[in-house]
Amino acid sequence: MSDVSPTATLLLSCPDQRGLVATVAAFLYEHDGNIIHADQHTDAEEGVFLQRVEWELDGFGVERDELADAFAPIAERFGMNWSLRFSDARPRVALFVSKQAHCMYDLLARYRMGELRCEIPLVISNHADLGHIAADFGIPYHHLPLTPETKPEQEAAALRLLEAHGVDVIVLARYMQILSADFVAGYQNRIINIHHSFLPAFAGARPYHQAHERGVKIIGATAHYVTETLDDGPIIAQDVSVVSHRDSVKDLVRTGTDLEKVVLARATRLHLDNRVLVYGNRTVIFD
Amino acid sequence: MSDVSPTATLLLSCPDQRGLVATVAAFLYEHDGNIIHADQHTDAEEGVFLQRVEWELDGFGVERDELADAFAPIAERFGMNWSLRFSDARPRVALFVSKQAHCMYDLLARYRMGELRCEIPLVISNHADLGHIAADFGIPYHHLPLTPETKPEQEAAALRLLEAHGVDVIVLARYMQILSADFVAGYQNRIINIHHSFLPAFAGARPYHQAHERGVKIIGATAHYVTETLDDGPIIAQDVSVVSHRDSVKDLVRTGTDLEKVVLARATRLHLDNRVLVYGNRTVIFD
Amino acid sequence: MSDVSPTATLLLSCPDQRGLVATVAAFLYEHDGNIIHADQHTDAEEGVFLQRVEWELDGFGVERDELADAFAPIAERFGMNWSLRFSDARPRVALFVSKQAHCMYDLLARYRMGELRCEIPLVISNHADLGHIAADFGIPYHHLPLTPETKPEQEAAALRLLEAHGVDVIVLARYMQILSADFVAGYQNRIINIHHSFLPAFAGARPYHQAHERGVKIIGATAHYVTETLDDGPIIAQDVSVVSHRDSVKDLVRTGTDLEKVVLARATRLHLDNRVLVYGNRTVIFD
Amino acid sequence: MSDVSPTATLLLSCPDQRGLVATVAAFLYEHDGNIIHADQHTDAEEGVFLQRVEWELDGFGVERDELADAFAPIAERFGMNWSLRFSDARPRVALFVSKQAHCMYDLLARYRMGELRCEIPLVISNHADLGHIAADFGIPYHHLPLTPETKPEQEAAALRLLEAHGVDVIVLARYMQILSADFVAGYQNRIINIHHSFLPAFAGARPYHQAHERGVKIIGATAHYVTETLDDGPIIAQDVSVVSHRDSVKDLVRTGTDLEKVVLARATRLHLDNRVLVYGNRTVIFD
Repeated sequence: MSDVSPTATLLLSCPDQRGLVATVAAFLYEHDGNIIHADQHTDAEEGVFLQRVEWELDGFGVERDELADAFAPIAERFGMNWSLRFSDARPRVALFVSKQAHCMYDLLARYRMGELRCEIPLVISNHADLGHIAADFGIPYHHLPLTPETKPEQEAAALRLLEAHGVDVIVLARYMQILSADFVAGYQNRIINIHHSFLPAFAGARPYHQAHERGVKIIGATAHYVTETLDDGPIIAQDVSVVSHRDSVKDLVRTGTDLEKVVLARATRLHLDNRVLVYGNRTVIFD
Repeated sequence: MSDVSPTATLLLSCPDQRGLVATVAAFLYEHDGNIIHADQHTDAEEGVFLQRVEWELDGFGVERDELADAFAPIAERFGMNWSLRFSDARPRVALFVSKQAHCMYDLLARYRMGELRCEIPLVISNHADLGHIAADFGIPYHHLPLTPETKPEQEAAALRLLEAHGVDVIVLARYMQILSADFVAGYQNRIINIHHSFLPAFAGARPYHQAHERGVKIIGATAHYVTETLDDGPIIAQDVSVVSHRDSVKDLVRTGTDLEKVVLARATRLHLDNRVLVYGNRTVIFD
Repeated sequence: MSDVSPTATLLLSCPDQRGLVATVAAFLYEHDGNIIHADQHTDAEEGVFLQRVEWELDGFGVERDELADAFAPIAERFGMNWSLRFSDARPRVALFVSKQAHCMYDLLARYRMGELRCEIPLVISNHADLGHIAADFGIPYHHLPLTPETKPEQEAAALRLLEAHGVDVIVLARYMQILSADFVAGYQNRIINIHHSFLPAFAGARPYHQAHERGVKIIGATAHYVTETLDDGPIIAQDVSVVSHRDSVKDLVRTGTDLEKVVLARATRLHLDNRVLVYGNRTVIFD
Repeated sequence: MSDVSPTATLLLSCPDQRGLVATVAAFLYEHDGNIIHADQHTDAEEGVFLQRVEWELDGFGVERDELADAFAPIAERFGMNWSLRFSDARPRVALFVSKQAHCMYDLLARYRMGELRCEIPLVISNHADLGHIAADFGIPYHHLPLTPETKPEQEAAALRLLEAHGVDVIVLARYMQILSADFVAGYQNRIINIHHSFLPAFAGARPYHQAHERGVKIIGATAHYVTETLDDGPIIAQDVSVVSHRDSVKDLVRTGTDLEKVVLARATRLHLDNRVLVYGNRTVIFD
């Protein structure tokens, strides 16, 4: 990706109205913007328009640090929620883990292979078990053991770490603790969780046991943003695998862990590439 | 299939114990049985053994009408639940429909093409709308309109029709009424329903609206036996399709109807071919 | 769909260049066009831009019969291939069948249920076998038996029928004859075929036997436009199912027929809804 | 898995004949064998019977080292190809890699997490690039650079390494060299390769480019045993992902690498758990 010129990406949503596409396109055209990707979606029922536009910065007629100001009048006119990202910025990601290693291994391997456009400055865990993996990958591991009594102070400690490392995004890589509403509120639509079932089926604990008990013929995994309500945040990615009565709970877990790591990595990549827009409790995925 | 010699199929379940496979296999071997298919499953957690064996009747050393008596001592010794079916018997199926035609069209077309090993002597509906389709296929259509007041008497009328036509199996092809517990009890594990979602997600009414509202990335359909508890019976077959934010509720419904008809037909075929064994609230599918 | 106001749909492709999106959007905006859907795709490697825009005709500032003339200058300026369709036009479709009924049954049932935005004025076949199905659905069935000697004259007869009925689109619903290059040339990108494998695997005859012989774990079906080269035309839709060693050729055929009918119907619907753009030997599907 | 008592697994194939199931089951029953899993398959067309039986060694009436002798007369009587494995034996696996790390990372992480019942004593590569990963995981890495001239001597060097380390199984984790027929012959059905397409589609080089060029709507990956004929060995596992025109070659590669690593790991696990039987050019997977 190093041979590609840097791009700017605009993510916006607003009430649907005439002239939106024409106005945004004209803005880019007037400044000689070379559009790489453009995709929009209209939710007719909700009356919402959502758009993602990515264009090359080389040759564009507005300087990078003047871009926001140049676009602001358009945003104001249409009442847009919007954000602007640059492809050469690298968001900083913290991994939260507990005792299960498969998602952590997978994300760190992808990180080392350059698949994820980010920096991972630290791993935080409520257990010491996975510290040796972080060590193998040369990434600092912070063990913050949790009890009901120590939860507030440990969340505060975690927040201090996140701030100290300038963390933009938190990925819960099979982190088995529930974050407090306050903690979540500070990282709205920036905490990604993997739930080990096809939500909304089998929300809550021990979903593979639930799936086995119910005798389902397909199992799934769901990556979603964390909100105050458990397992109910906007869904980013899902995938499924076929199973049968021949699969024990242990088999379902094994099949499921493969789903989990692929789905969590996909959601993380989509987020880091600025391809996810949240509206209401739903997402638009500009893939 | 007409050139194949008739077969017998034994479906059995019992507490797991040593000697089961050896004893059943020896029984067939001693009588010169030529096994076509044999499959067994042990649920180690529940301690249950389940088996399906199919063998050719031609050349078998026990007459068809003496077979049950010949096997009974083995069944008794191991405490088996068991049933015996012959491939040239054709179960009699009643379709129940309401206003949506896609599953009905699909099942009747398969029936006419010889895909389903059964007879379909009648269609029962609480609406008159689909009568013309039954007429095109030359199958009697019985319109039994329902109100809360008339439900008991109309269920009684349906039961009389089922008995008069010697019906073995009921397929609810998008039948939008809930059958009474008494009605269900008379056809235990013989009423197949298609639920238009990936159960247990989105049980109940309007699942496609629920799926759209929740922003899921995959939708499904589930065929299951009807039990007293709504949408909670043993699952026979499930399938899924990938969807996206680009899909409106109408798109989800259209994608879903294709899933529904394929999944319901698959479940119906599995049942008619004696490939489903129910234990607890689960199924073993001997495919 | 009757309560929806009619829409116009513009499908266009041209060399990628700046100002395309802005110019098309401005054209619609200036004439008070209410865009329902808009989607575009840039193939960076080929340097091709492709777009689909759909907007409401009610309230639009250009009359329907003046629309092409109004847009022509833009098309000329950018060197566009383009077409304009109206949602209340109903393309006329001819089904070609041989002896297998499943795709024919499925398409006719969908037609009767209103799933397909088209008219089906006739069915053409090289065999008499499926005439009774057409009769049940009240659709004329033309039997044009084929031998190597009679092929040219029978294709000529078919062409006369297609012209007499004003046919726009031909759907080969498991039609087992190869159309001549001349015939195909007359309906470029307007003849849809279903191939009973996951192309390019198992092109040619008896793909399920080939798949069984090769021991694949997944089978597929492919709907594509017919070109001069057998089984090599632009792919419109594909789908797959999981299979195993337990599946005989007969089982693969049965699983495959379900794939075939769903995939062919999907491709037909996409074509009829003007959602397919062909470029090179590929398609863009605006779904 | 440490709390489970060790088991023996018998894998056998032979011409189909009466009494097979009964005789094998009786053998185990007579010696108080507690069957954990039993599965058989009959290929009616080829007239081949294949079976996998797994039973507990604790309490079994034949000593482990006398088992083969005790079973031999049965095997001889029916003309069986057979093998006997013990669950506490750990096959020794060599990974072969080139420059792409994703399958190597994935397999080593699974190895460290205890997902794979094996030892991995070494990694062999024709490039030095991935040595640092092996080092992070503490596994010896042997760099054997290849040119057309040095290939024979380097294969000989590799064979010496394999023998020195007592290697039973070779996993080609995106190893981009073709092994010689002699080399392959020494490890028949013991070399597992991952091909980055849905075989037999896109055999040979650059399959993702081929897939993009052909405009397929689904891509796949295939794990198979290596035979003399390139990309034509018995298929162990396959999986697919939905793609679209929006996916560039780079996107296909990214989606494909996720398939590759999951499919290769699945095939490796199935092989290590003695769940694969090869007959002709096909496999039976006892899952």
